[in-house]
Amino acid sequence: MCQTCLVKTIHSINSHFGWDNSFEPTARVAPGTTLEFQCRDSSSGYFTRSSVAADVAIMPFDKINPVTGPIFVEGAQPGDVLKVTLDSFKPSGFGWTANIPGFGLLADQFKEPALALWSYDKDNLTPAAFGTFGKVPLKPFAGTIGVAPAAPGLHSIVPPRRVGGNLDIRDLAAGTTLYLPVEVEGALFSIGDTHAAQGDGEVCGTAIESAMDVVVTLDLIKSTPLAAPRFSTPGPVTRHLDVDGYEAFTGVAPDLMEAARQAVSSTIDWLCREQGMPAEQAYMLCSVCGDLRISEVVDLPNWVVSFYFPKVVFN
Amino acid sequence: MCQTCLVKTIHSINSHFGWDNSFEPTARVAPGTTLEFQCRDSSSGYFTRSSVAADVAIMPFDKINPVTGPIFVEGAQPGDVLKVTLDSFKPSGFGWTANIPGFGLLADQFKEPALALWSYDKDNLTPAAFGTFGKVPLKPFAGTIGVAPAAPGLHSIVPPRRVGGNLDIRDLAAGTTLYLPVEVEGALFSIGDTHAAQGDGEVCGTAIESAMDVVVTLDLIKSTPLAAPRFSTPGPVTRHLDVDGYEAFTGVAPDLMEAARQAVSSTIDWLCREQGMPAEQAYMLCSVCGDLRISEVVDLPNWVVSFYFPKVVFN
Repeated sequence: MCQTCLVKTIHSINSHFGWDNSFEPTARVAPGTTLEFQCRDSSSGYFTRSSVAADVAIMPFDKINPVTGPIFVEGAQPGDVLKVTLDSFKPSGFGWTANIPGFGLLADQFKEPALALWSYDKDNLTPAAFGTFGKVPLKPFAGTIGVAPAAPGLHSIVPPRRVGGNLDIRDLAAGTTLYLPVEVEGALFSIGDTHAAQGDGEVCGTAIESAMDVVVTLDLIKSTPLAAPRFSTPGPVTRHLDVDGYEAFTGVAPDLMEAARQAVSSTIDWLCREQGMPAEQAYMLCSVCGDLRISEVVDLPNWVVSFYFPKVVFN
Repeated sequence: MCQTCLVKTIHSINSHFGWDNSFEPTARVAPGTTLEFQCRDSSSGYFTRSSVAADVAIMPFDKINPVTGPIFVEGAQPGDVLKVTLDSFKPSGFGWTANIPGFGLLADQFKEPALALWSYDKDNLTPAAFGTFGKVPLKPFAGTIGVAPAAPGLHSIVPPRRVGGNLDIRDLAAGTTLYLPVEVEGALFSIGDTHAAQGDGEVCGTAIESAMDVVVTLDLIKSTPLAAPRFSTPGPVTRHLDVDGYEAFTGVAPDLMEAARQAVSSTIDWLCREQGMPAEQAYMLCSVCGDLRISEVVDLPNWVVSFYFPKVVFN
């Protein structure tokens, strides 16, 4: 049992890699149950305070993104909705961010492995130092939250899908309620890939990856079809970042992906020029605090994507 | 002269349609000059308080999106940057939002013309009633701000481009500084397409289109190449919307455009179901207050776009 909240703990030993509706449930609970999940970081503990960039190149890919679960929710049937309330997060205080070759929005430009290690105040969650360059405001959340897909067999953990999974939505933070379509009996809920901070887009492919305990309440809404995950936030979502405003860079192109790439590239150029930051450090910093927004998607044939870098990082 | 600020006024009679570097400047100013621009709405005054949806079908497309200018900035040369500080906006109090067949993120689903008219408090900018459905917080800005492209001839006003233009970036509001690449001698700056409110994406293709006067300071940064427009906001950008949090809907797909379409479609379905709103009204409401964000663009092969609908509209 969790010492402080008296809810049942799902230990991180009960984790799995990928989604498979034949995985044996680690617990069976009634709708309305609150559970504490121990979530390992997305490297399964591979990265430590003594890791270096060379370790990124040889990280074991069969051990990425463990999720804790699955939980069988009694009465859940295909066509129902699982209501997941994210009650609280207890972060570990250690995190890492990496550029993993082959991953990331600018994978073609950043081919070398890079690694940043973070040590942050797990109790007060004060902004975390990124080397000597600046401080990144924290907002813990779970990157991967989902239920088992109906399709049989083992499915990769990497892509998010209709039933959730590796959504990497920055606002799946404390107080938010996530609604997931149920595709199999019992729903088979799992959670992991916790992040201490991330910007919208997660542009380099990783956030501040960090083990945490997460308290979640699982409830059921019967017979209410849902096309894709939706969520409801209890209040503002960017106030940890927005106080001093933003430096924003646009991409203007007939393709949203190309526009996003232009916007992030321009931001990295600016960080290198104005802050004297090596490019791969700038890229990782963008990933943990900058937000990709679609400014307009209607002025044929060019769309505008803007990348918002929060000034508070340097203030 | 503007009565209150003692700056030169550029009257709306000095407007043009499209971009052409052979247009005669309406004024020549030194760097550092502050000007007040009278901006017509994007229909050139075609829509009035008595307009109806049928008027959308026959609107004259050769008169859309007039911009006031151009202004020749002395000393501006190709390779310079025009620094545009948006000092203040004086909105007119009347606005319109339309679904124009053939335009918009969901043009294939919304083929009939639709029109919403807005009457808002131009002095206090209190949230504006959208029929009896809700109230939309206002934040005036200019949708089209740009300088003349180097390429000769007349260029359509519709697409934004490297030199700015129809950017439709919601945060080009009071206090923001926009930086534009100069491509021709004198820069040839123009502004228009003012909006009383818009969400990121401008999903139905129009905002709260509304005539306004805009006070702008034009300055020059010499010999500083810039790839595309960038901007700097003086503070937070979504606090007019965020106080009660958001209902958010995701699209999960291997294509950002498809993911954006799914996210907005799900939001419209929800508005119709929960608020009893006709679909075309829901679509227009999304366009003026909901934000399209790229949640993740790295979890191969599926990206997540989320559409954030602000709860404050119904509170």
